[in-house]
Amino acid sequence: MIGFPDVWWCCGWVSAGRRWGCCSSCCRGEEFVVQLQVALDVLDLPSALTLANRVSEFVDILELGTPLVKSAGIAAVTAVKAAHPDKLVFADLKTADAGELEADLAFGAGADLVTVMGVADDDTVRGAVAAGARHGKRVVADMIGVVDGRVERIRQVAELGVAFVEIHAGLDEQARPGYSIDRLLADGRAAGVPFSIAGGVKADTIGSVREAGAVVAVAGGAIYNADDPAAAAAELQKRIVS
Amino acid sequence: MIGFPDVWWCCGWVSAGRRWGCCSSCCRGEEFVVQLQVALDVLDLPSALTLANRVSEFVDILELGTPLVKSAGIAAVTAVKAAHPDKLVFADLKTADAGELEADLAFGAGADLVTVMGVADDDTVRGAVAAGARHGKRVVADMIGVVDGRVERIRQVAELGVAFVEIHAGLDEQARPGYSIDRLLADGRAAGVPFSIAGGVKADTIGSVREAGAVVAVAGGAIYNADDPAAAAAELQKRIVS
Repeated sequence: MIGFPDVWWCCGWVSAGRRWGCCSSCCRGEEFVVQLQVALDVLDLPSALTLANRVSEFVDILELGTPLVKSAGIAAVTAVKAAHPDKLVFADLKTADAGELEADLAFGAGADLVTVMGVADDDTVRGAVAAGARHGKRVVADMIGVVDGRVERIRQVAELGVAFVEIHAGLDEQARPGYSIDRLLADGRAAGVPFSIAGGVKADTIGSVREAGAVVAVAGGAIYNADDPAAAAAELQKRIVS
Repeated sequence: MIGFPDVWWCCGWVSAGRRWGCCSSCCRGEEFVVQLQVALDVLDLPSALTLANRVSEFVDILELGTPLVKSAGIAAVTAVKAAHPDKLVFADLKTADAGELEADLAFGAGADLVTVMGVADDDTVRGAVAAGARHGKRVVADMIGVVDGRVERIRQVAELGVAFVEIHAGLDEQARPGYSIDRLLADGRAAGVPFSIAGGVKADTIGSVREAGAVVAVAGGAIYNADDPAAAAAELQKRIVS
């Protein structure tokens, strides 16, 4: 497992071209290594565990998608962490209010990473970060819903203490004709803070995610909609490091 | 029980001063009646059921707060509806993506009303509304996180087909010194579409919520933090109609 919390900041700054040094656990000398996160976008715990079991050897982070948490409850986080204690478990709560309360709930259930919405009130973000500090865990700001002024807001939430920022186009946005991952990547490059990319990460785009300097690439449909999710995850892992 | 779906639009337009007529189930002749919603902001189902049992006779709508849904899962909606089939059950999902999927999940579990975030992509709102149409249920747009241009966005989401718009200051925003409900009320008056108010509704403000023309007043802490939640709900009910 790649550890927390130092790795993120180190890699973030490395990825942003500010080489303050490189921790050997995530970087190979001067070569930056992106982590692979799979979004378990299913609606029940048995399906999530089945999918996680199939793909876990090829990914670094197991994400419980927002609909899964709402459907199955926070106990699903505990179950996934228990089944995969060597992986980072990411609870995509997309918290919009009561930041400390919701993050505390997820960290208490075993999450290593919890999302708060980038559109949320600054005090909501601060509350989630405070909960993370108490648990020795980290908060991610999900930028879904931030369209105008995204780069500026990314920098603001980074200042509030999140570990990194997920630049995210949702499923509904991706479903529109003409959708492209390129604007996400451009905003990541421009922001100059540690970021992940979610929204259209697949075999033929993951190379550009790496080149843009993301600390994490989040893949959902490219894995769970594949005929062979394990093979799809293995392919993404291969492309992320080569 | 006050029925759906016609009531909302009727009352909304009545409240906005556009008297297209008045349905007898929610209006008393020309007198507009605001509905009272209690936010069950607890973290486990037994506590939610206990609170609902204490206050249900005084309220119209039982809301499962977002942290409760994330904690206990969507089955909590089914349990509250089963215990109170004569009340409207409001699942505060605060959906930010996958609008149709999440709304379908909640309606399928027994919710009468489901929230989608006003900051969400228009297609997310449309998806939730489409799920509502299939189930014969209604969607509410929660405006939390929309600060600049709120009146304009309220009108936009109303056009997308939500039943009404919840003008909402979150718990984190309310906790700041100097917070006032007045700006919520001003935006409700200005928007000219059916709206509810959440954020500081209590005995000494609920009269102003009614005067502003809200279709629903949402009370949380004023009820669940009271020494006697039933008495607090009864007092709010009394003030909402007199």
